[in-house]
Amino acid sequence: MGKRIYRDPVHNIISLDQDSEPDRLLIALIDAPEFQRLRRIKQLGLALYTYQGAEHSRFVHSLGVMHLMNRVLTLLGEHHPIDEGVRLVALCAALLHDVGHGPFSHVVETLLGFHHEEWTVRLISDPRTQIHQLLSHTDRELPEKIIAVLEHRYRPRFVAQLVSSQLDVDRFDYLLRDSLMTGAKYGFFDLEWVLHALELDPREDRLYVSAKGLYAVEEYLQARYYMFRQVYFHRALRTAEVLLKAIFRRAIELNAAGQLRFNLSDSPMGKLLQQKTLTTEEYVELDDHDLMFFIKQWAHERDPILRDLAHRFLERRILKSIDFTLTGALKDEFIDRARRIVARAGFDPDYYLSEDRASDTPYRPYTPEQAHPESCIYIAENGGQLQEITRVSAVVAGMRPFHLNRLCFPEEVFEEISTLAEEAPFVEGSPS
Amino acid sequence: MGKRIYRDPVHNIISLDQDSEPDRLLIALIDAPEFQRLRRIKQLGLALYTYQGAEHSRFVHSLGVMHLMNRVLTLLGEHHPIDEGVRLVALCAALLHDVGHGPFSHVVETLLGFHHEEWTVRLISDPRTQIHQLLSHTDRELPEKIIAVLEHRYRPRFVAQLVSSQLDVDRFDYLLRDSLMTGAKYGFFDLEWVLHALELDPREDRLYVSAKGLYAVEEYLQARYYMFRQVYFHRALRTAEVLLKAIFRRAIELNAAGQLRFNLSDSPMGKLLQQKTLTTEEYVELDDHDLMFFIKQWAHERDPILRDLAHRFLERRILKSIDFTLTGALKDEFIDRARRIVARAGFDPDYYLSEDRASDTPYRPYTPEQAHPESCIYIAENGGQLQEITRVSAVVAGMRPFHLNRLCFPEEVFEEISTLAEEAPFVEGSPS
Amino acid sequence: MGKRIYRDPVHNIISLDQDSEPDRLLIALIDAPEFQRLRRIKQLGLALYTYQGAEHSRFVHSLGVMHLMNRVLTLLGEHHPIDEGVRLVALCAALLHDVGHGPFSHVVETLLGFHHEEWTVRLISDPRTQIHQLLSHTDRELPEKIIAVLEHRYRPRFVAQLVSSQLDVDRFDYLLRDSLMTGAKYGFFDLEWVLHALELDPREDRLYVSAKGLYAVEEYLQARYYMFRQVYFHRALRTAEVLLKAIFRRAIELNAAGQLRFNLSDSPMGKLLQQKTLTTEEYVELDDHDLMFFIKQWAHERDPILRDLAHRFLERRILKSIDFTLTGALKDEFIDRARRIVARAGFDPDYYLSEDRASDTPYRPYTPEQAHPESCIYIAENGGQLQEITRVSAVVAGMRPFHLNRLCFPEEVFEEISTLAEEAPFVEGSPS
Amino acid sequence: MGKRIYRDPVHNIISLDQDSEPDRLLIALIDAPEFQRLRRIKQLGLALYTYQGAEHSRFVHSLGVMHLMNRVLTLLGEHHPIDEGVRLVALCAALLHDVGHGPFSHVVETLLGFHHEEWTVRLISDPRTQIHQLLSHTDRELPEKIIAVLEHRYRPRFVAQLVSSQLDVDRFDYLLRDSLMTGAKYGFFDLEWVLHALELDPREDRLYVSAKGLYAVEEYLQARYYMFRQVYFHRALRTAEVLLKAIFRRAIELNAAGQLRFNLSDSPMGKLLQQKTLTTEEYVELDDHDLMFFIKQWAHERDPILRDLAHRFLERRILKSIDFTLTGALKDEFIDRARRIVARAGFDPDYYLSEDRASDTPYRPYTPEQAHPESCIYIAENGGQLQEITRVSAVVAGMRPFHLNRLCFPEEVFEEISTLAEEAPFVEGSPS
Repeated sequence: MGKRIYRDPVHNIISLDQDSEPDRLLIALIDAPEFQRLRRIKQLGLALYTYQGAEHSRFVHSLGVMHLMNRVLTLLGEHHPIDEGVRLVALCAALLHDVGHGPFSHVVETLLGFHHEEWTVRLISDPRTQIHQLLSHTDRELPEKIIAVLEHRYRPRFVAQLVSSQLDVDRFDYLLRDSLMTGAKYGFFDLEWVLHALELDPREDRLYVSAKGLYAVEEYLQARYYMFRQVYFHRALRTAEVLLKAIFRRAIELNAAGQLRFNLSDSPMGKLLQQKTLTTEEYVELDDHDLMFFIKQWAHERDPILRDLAHRFLERRILKSIDFTLTGALKDEFIDRARRIVARAGFDPDYYLSEDRASDTPYRPYTPEQAHPESCIYIAENGGQLQEITRVSAVVAGMRPFHLNRLCFPEEVFEEISTLAEEAPFVEGSPS
Repeated sequence: MGKRIYRDPVHNIISLDQDSEPDRLLIALIDAPEFQRLRRIKQLGLALYTYQGAEHSRFVHSLGVMHLMNRVLTLLGEHHPIDEGVRLVALCAALLHDVGHGPFSHVVETLLGFHHEEWTVRLISDPRTQIHQLLSHTDRELPEKIIAVLEHRYRPRFVAQLVSSQLDVDRFDYLLRDSLMTGAKYGFFDLEWVLHALELDPREDRLYVSAKGLYAVEEYLQARYYMFRQVYFHRALRTAEVLLKAIFRRAIELNAAGQLRFNLSDSPMGKLLQQKTLTTEEYVELDDHDLMFFIKQWAHERDPILRDLAHRFLERRILKSIDFTLTGALKDEFIDRARRIVARAGFDPDYYLSEDRASDTPYRPYTPEQAHPESCIYIAENGGQLQEITRVSAVVAGMRPFHLNRLCFPEEVFEEISTLAEEAPFVEGSPS
Repeated sequence: MGKRIYRDPVHNIISLDQDSEPDRLLIALIDAPEFQRLRRIKQLGLALYTYQGAEHSRFVHSLGVMHLMNRVLTLLGEHHPIDEGVRLVALCAALLHDVGHGPFSHVVETLLGFHHEEWTVRLISDPRTQIHQLLSHTDRELPEKIIAVLEHRYRPRFVAQLVSSQLDVDRFDYLLRDSLMTGAKYGFFDLEWVLHALELDPREDRLYVSAKGLYAVEEYLQARYYMFRQVYFHRALRTAEVLLKAIFRRAIELNAAGQLRFNLSDSPMGKLLQQKTLTTEEYVELDDHDLMFFIKQWAHERDPILRDLAHRFLERRILKSIDFTLTGALKDEFIDRARRIVARAGFDPDYYLSEDRASDTPYRPYTPEQAHPESCIYIAENGGQLQEITRVSAVVAGMRPFHLNRLCFPEEVFEEISTLAEEAPFVEGSPS
Repeated sequence: MGKRIYRDPVHNIISLDQDSEPDRLLIALIDAPEFQRLRRIKQLGLALYTYQGAEHSRFVHSLGVMHLMNRVLTLLGEHHPIDEGVRLVALCAALLHDVGHGPFSHVVETLLGFHHEEWTVRLISDPRTQIHQLLSHTDRELPEKIIAVLEHRYRPRFVAQLVSSQLDVDRFDYLLRDSLMTGAKYGFFDLEWVLHALELDPREDRLYVSAKGLYAVEEYLQARYYMFRQVYFHRALRTAEVLLKAIFRRAIELNAAGQLRFNLSDSPMGKLLQQKTLTTEEYVELDDHDLMFFIKQWAHERDPILRDLAHRFLERRILKSIDFTLTGALKDEFIDRARRIVARAGFDPDYYLSEDRASDTPYRPYTPEQAHPESCIYIAENGGQLQEITRVSAVVAGMRPFHLNRLCFPEEVFEEISTLAEEAPFVEGSPS
């Protein structure tokens, strides 16, 4: 076999052909240091505190996305010839779509001042990265084309649809992979059927789903819905993230005040703590190991707050939380009273009490003012006419956004805050 | 549910009952910092350089082993009442059997002077660990009983057989888990059938396998055989380990010579580099993040050898290798010539050329002088009489040990050393 | 192993212990001729014309239902002791719930004048069946108790809930098994999680689902919904059934007119064709082979209609169909015109044109006038209070019944009837 | 989708494209009555008496074989262009390789005087079959080409290798399918890896396996070995077959003597009982339903032997058996004594006592006198040179043929014959 073969728990065999020019580029991109670094960045961050098996990296996910892109293009290509150049752009974009992710991105990037989407663009466009050099050596325009896909400017439009829409190969891979690894199973859907139902309308430059695929797409959207409710928004995962944020807020403040013993100030992490901008080279060095190593050192700091928070994090003594639905003055009062409880128990409420809010929309239907109508899902009716999915599926039309609104605090005050919540006329939901 | 439930990719649901006293102890042990630390230690070390999905930790494996012990005891208990005290010892031993593992144990423990078996005993016996306190609070003798199991001194003897023999729950879990995670599949066997075929002979205090289980046990031994050949002894995995050893040898020498910039000399890693003994507390702090973080720092050292080795490691530019079967003077000559090739290419052969040797015996039959006859596998013939498995299975009797003997070196000299190997009358096997 | 072990594609190992008295009864029931006969009756009848893998028998399903009952009782028994006598009744009822099924029951039982529910009761209560003798030999009341379960009269009530409600082990098994065998996958749900979430409220004598199980139960209801839409109500399956009904209608008429050459008038099938009542013994002889053998003979009849219908059936040249939603006079007109098209093409519309109607309600919420409130699903809120599921799940509350209304006819007139449907102002939906 | 899609429990989606000419032929062949008839012939005959899930038909297996042929050709075609005409021959041969199978072929074909291989050739070559007409309409030579493949005369030779050798798509499908359906699991092997390791040497016109595929092929051969031991040669399956043979021997004799009430003498089954030759049309009518229906009727015959045998068969009261290794005079004496035991117990030993012999060779290495050297397995060493597999694999070289030699008799004499076997100096093995 002149083949590079990856065995994958989800897709089984991911095969690249060293005798084919496009595959040789993909192999070289995978071997580039900027991509190898994704081995050291977990796909689901702190989810392993809830689902201990969720230890997989962005590296394996990215391979899976590239593989699915390849499969989709092969299937579509049976009926519509796909330009080789377009195919290469699509495969590279699939492989590299997450390359700018940093450690625990969803949690700490705002705190530490980096945005993974910007870094993805930068790693592709910066002439000093190996990724950029490999791409531009193949085709000087290639880096820009890939960025155009990521920014929904590339034509044909269906490439961006496949990389990033409400029915894309990124979601296909992460739902299946996260389901398998967490063991939570909610994200399984009938991938093969969906793949075989995907069709390309070359005149309108639009992907759609044939009539027979409707139920499988419904199932896919429901799979995503349940994964959000049961995994991505899981209470323990979210409160672990709240704890991680508190650690970094405290560390940044101590550092600014010159009170942090361990900061390695000229390392990438050290510079982030000082809110300095990183060079591309420095950013590429950054991964989960840095964050974890720093937190482990902080468990020995003199500052009792940082030390305690770090210990809680390392020993998985994460926060507790309670759902609430209050707004306005009632909410202010509730939080105010909760802060006083936390403070009375000896905890600084600035670090030990946090509101946690998030929401997800299972499916966003088409609206005329939409920037990217191609991110909607279109179904061919049996007659052949395309319809946005909410027109033909009562199930999808009936899917509602969900919101979480929680207050997080140490286990030590769980009883008191539960009682506060029950006493109040204003709190519903159940603590846990 | 008053239950602590873990979802597991291999076993699906691992359930502990907070209303049951033994389970409450197991939950507390899992929550202890010494056990939580296993989340940060990969089960298969560098295997992810070959099988990128092999990212699972010793934490998930240890949960799986405990779960399987629970299942076996329940099945055995259908026919033979199992003493509650014995059951608790067995479950704790299964859970804690790997608790002393350090980062990349199989590779670096000899270099850095720790042995995971000793540390397992120490973490259980040291009165300052939370694990010890939890155990001895339940039963003052419990720590010693668990250590007795691990050291094959405990009675009834079948407990140690289940924890550590040639047919034990540790192997059951790791074969299935490593197969799933690597995607290599070689380790799958018919677990359920084996579990249902396990029987206890209480008079002889011995586990055996009923006649119907023979084929499934053959399959299990073959599964293990193939996992060794295809995963645990995989060429890329082994040469990555050789590279890691070279890094640490160089770092220790530079450190001794005062030429290592980054060593954090009072951290656990820093002390290991100085070959100092760690306290229990320090050992518990040590995990994969430390090693990876140090190696990342060393990629900036002034020493060109350490810097280069670290870069190769981080970017997965691992060594190449060639099998050989020479011995005696012929081998010396071969290695000597290879060293000169390596040196001529500008690499210091002390770090860039290594022999790699290993062997595995798929099954060790009973011999009279054996220390632990209970580690053999016994099969009940249809008449009911027990036989050591090689007496009844031509397949097992025919399994042969296998050895690997390789020379590892940088890709840059691959052509030259391949030619050397082909020229010699004395080299067989194929480079790759 | 003193065990009777069945390997099962869905549940893996189904084990019965020959040393346990209840299991010995179950083994004897399985070995009884009335139960062995279920090997010769397909679970899904004609579904294999759509999903060619759906060849499994009611025998394997019945074993699976018994196995799941055993698992549920073991799990419930961890918290609430379950009376051994009740346990035995539950297991027997699970095993025997389908024992009265005849060949292609859902299709031909009305035509041929048998009802499988009545026959189930009769096979259990008739003193001449081996099943009855085995049961009454164990406990003279046992046959009556099992019938009481099937008729929702037995107490404790939870037994009937487990055997036959909207969350029962029958549905658990058939959804998973039919999904696997058809390859359609729609029926997969998280069985293990549901099983671990089932709880018993012994005071109210009611099963319920703990709060953590809500999403899994939602998924289970959706799985059933999709299986109905995609498998049980599949167009090709339903039209094959319509064809089978036409064959039997024609055969009965020819037989009454003395024009059927092959009828073996004193065989059970022969008696059914004469609309005579069968004895228990005769009924037990009846299975899929009889129907298929008769149809194969009828392919040689002189009557051109029966001959043609039989050939179409055997060669899987099934009917075509079209959905319609007309009612009243418009519908009458549509069907009338369609009959004329069929007749003009040379087919007797009495046999070649049929309306096919069916509907399913994904979940029936509790209503005060309900006969069996225990067939609803109850969820424990986090506080512990039980709620009927539609009160806490927007997903379940939003599930709507669906109806199918189709006209079936030979492929030869497909174009014409499609055109008729399109022309009409009154037809919607798409032919296929 | 202009696609004909089959969902398959083993291969998931089997897709044929109605817009492609070769696929249209395959679809038409599948729809032909001679192929549809395979729906009514079980793949594993009586295996369902041992593994109750083994209810799948030769229809689903044949689809699977065609699908695998398609996959192999696509993979091979990535490196070597495969002629479209050759591809069509290969697909048709894969689809039709079993089309001549009759009901329970392996058991009754010698008794009833048909050989499925001959019938396969006849159904393809007889101008009156729809299969023949479809093939010859596409290419007048096509029927003959397909027969040439089945008879190992076709060139290029690799087509016959893929259809029928020691590493062929037939075995790939049946091992996986029979494993899944029986639940016995022994037949699982790493199909994907084998498929990706198959290579074509166009100069030598030979298939081989690349070096990386060696272990997977070893596993495949072991899978087949265990399936023979545990499934295809299972004691209960074999004794059920012995019983079936006895039924037919008795029925043929009674029929010849004019003492069989039920024989439908002008039906295909009736003619077989008279040892008459069937026309192609008659043969195509024959399936499992005929045999089962006849046996059910025979349970009402006056002849007590046939009646009893038929009842035992239908109620799965199959024979018992004992292994023995005697030969020569000792064997004669043993069987003679056993016959007397059987006769004393009131059973006619001509029908109630049978020897059952069978053997399988896990792998036949190349020998110079071999008719079809292409049926061996060839492995490419790392250097590229091809070797017959026993030269490079100690595992395969060590695989030994196994033989079964059993005596079958009614359960009623089990004790006595067991005692006889134990008494004798000449009997080994264990009754069960």
